[in-house]
Amino acid sequence: MKVAADHLMEVITKLLQAIGAGDKEARLVAKILVQADLRGIRTHGCAFLPLIAERCAHGLLNIPTKTMLITDEGAITHIDGNNGLGQVAAAEAMQLSIHKARNHGVTLALIRNTNHIGFLGYYTLMAAAEGMIGICATNAAASVAPWGGAEPFFGSNPFSIAAPVANGAPIVLDMSASVAARGKIRRAQRLNENIPEGWALDETGCPTTDPAEALKGTLLPIAGYKGSGLALFIDLMCGLLSGSKYGRDLLTFHKPIGPTGVGAMLMAIDIGRFMPLARFETLVNEYAAAIRNSKKAVGVERIFLPGEIEAEKADASKSRGIEVDSQIIEKINVLLEQKDLAIRIEEK
Amino acid sequence: MKVAADHLMEVITKLLQAIGAGDKEARLVAKILVQADLRGIRTHGCAFLPLIAERCAHGLLNIPTKTMLITDEGAITHIDGNNGLGQVAAAEAMQLSIHKARNHGVTLALIRNTNHIGFLGYYTLMAAAEGMIGICATNAAASVAPWGGAEPFFGSNPFSIAAPVANGAPIVLDMSASVAARGKIRRAQRLNENIPEGWALDETGCPTTDPAEALKGTLLPIAGYKGSGLALFIDLMCGLLSGSKYGRDLLTFHKPIGPTGVGAMLMAIDIGRFMPLARFETLVNEYAAAIRNSKKAVGVERIFLPGEIEAEKADASKSRGIEVDSQIIEKINVLLEQKDLAIRIEEK
Repeated sequence: MKVAADHLMEVITKLLQAIGAGDKEARLVAKILVQADLRGIRTHGCAFLPLIAERCAHGLLNIPTKTMLITDEGAITHIDGNNGLGQVAAAEAMQLSIHKARNHGVTLALIRNTNHIGFLGYYTLMAAAEGMIGICATNAAASVAPWGGAEPFFGSNPFSIAAPVANGAPIVLDMSASVAARGKIRRAQRLNENIPEGWALDETGCPTTDPAEALKGTLLPIAGYKGSGLALFIDLMCGLLSGSKYGRDLLTFHKPIGPTGVGAMLMAIDIGRFMPLARFETLVNEYAAAIRNSKKAVGVERIFLPGEIEAEKADASKSRGIEVDSQIIEKINVLLEQKDLAIRIEEK
Repeated sequence: MKVAADHLMEVITKLLQAIGAGDKEARLVAKILVQADLRGIRTHGCAFLPLIAERCAHGLLNIPTKTMLITDEGAITHIDGNNGLGQVAAAEAMQLSIHKARNHGVTLALIRNTNHIGFLGYYTLMAAAEGMIGICATNAAASVAPWGGAEPFFGSNPFSIAAPVANGAPIVLDMSASVAARGKIRRAQRLNENIPEGWALDETGCPTTDPAEALKGTLLPIAGYKGSGLALFIDLMCGLLSGSKYGRDLLTFHKPIGPTGVGAMLMAIDIGRFMPLARFETLVNEYAAAIRNSKKAVGVERIFLPGEIEAEKADASKSRGIEVDSQIIEKINVLLEQKDLAIRIEEK
């Protein structure tokens, strides 16, 4: 079903307020969820709203979110997310990082004790909008086997980096260290679809195309030891060094069985320290054009830059409406009713 | 042929001195080449020495290396490598970064206008030895197609990250953004061996197992858009932002056709800002043990941490000698003769 972005934003904001979020944080989280849906990252969009509500109902999410600044020294920021909404902690950390990078040139913020922060591109794009290179990573509940392993140890541990471009949308890479995000497998399960071979092993350590078997087994890291190593270091930084949970100790956001213990890392790099920002943005624009115009593989009509497909989807969804799974809409409408709110999600 | 590490170190140092390197830089570069060979990274070991000599003979390498400090402000360092030995510029940048990270917590150094910096783990291990997390990346001559492309645009653009561990060798990831390093394909060609399918496309954009065809065609990035995106952002930071060459403008170190224009990025993160170093190292040790003891995939006897295979190879090579290709030994012995040096590489 197609839903208008503004309408979805309004519904999510009201529901978040009704379950205890402050006005500002409700708008922020709604914006991040809707942007994910707009960009076609449906595993990180309004599908998360029922999970947030469920977690609150179980007393497993402290909202309104009250973060605590542990360290704010030099180029370093250390934040405790106080088991609140991850989006609030991460946006605050990136805001601070951008501000501090103007003084120090580069900054590192670690967050401990928070929850799922949503799609990472939101935060790296915040930095790009301020003329900086933004970097963000987070750990997650174990779903990926180490290289050579047959059981989950790492999370999908996503990573994002973004840079501004003259006369166009920023380039933004947003990737997980697993061949496929766990959310994609959950969505396949929800839609009764198979998953491609190579994404996952079942419980016995054999390849599987059944999403249910995959969720009982383990996801595989990208590129063998390389993806495994990336997932490991993201966990070391976001989980272990931040003082958060790591490895198999993290809990999933998808079941209300306890605090997730998610950690995150955010960096901002002030481009202007190395060259005038306008020049950098112009060079990146030319660089992107050279990639687009390079020789294409057989069957490829167009070469896309990181984030380009998502930016175009967002433009299209803004005018045509956002495609939302009917199961998600039903769940949200039930929640609206339970909270005595008059509004319902309606088709555009 | 097996060669003793100390002997190889002595030969390389003398040859580098004979072709114009200063004493200190000759020892540094020799150490980095020998460490690569010790760790089994034979594409980055003494196989590079004849290339360095050839480049000097063509007036394409400025030695002794005289780097220039462009910016040294706050947490930022910007260095011009003055077309000298990349190892000198990179080691200097990491030394400075470590020093500055004690004040700022995190630092970023960019190097422009340098050459091949050798295996990246050397620099990230420098940081780990000082109780820091080290990060390093560099760009390289175009060899990898963008996602969807059929001609080289990115270099293999390697990336390394290392962290210290209590009672053991640091964990160090050292990976390229291509499925295989170009050096591995060159070595297969030298040894008349085929390469596995999936590493490369030939000139017409078709998969190939012939190293010569692969070198005329293009390498493939790891994990599709993910490896392509990593290569892109490494180039944006190391090449474009540093003021160095990028994309197709970089020249290979393997042919004396002009300055390579390589750029590099180095970061140091002071662990002690977030938790006592000893505690971090102990936790990482436990973390590594948990990974090693996790369930193994069918046919896997042991799960290795990043850098563990290389560290064990180094220990073995120290006692048994380093395996060096006979063609490389011949080339080096010819160079020693040309420079009127009495020493020759001899079998251990």
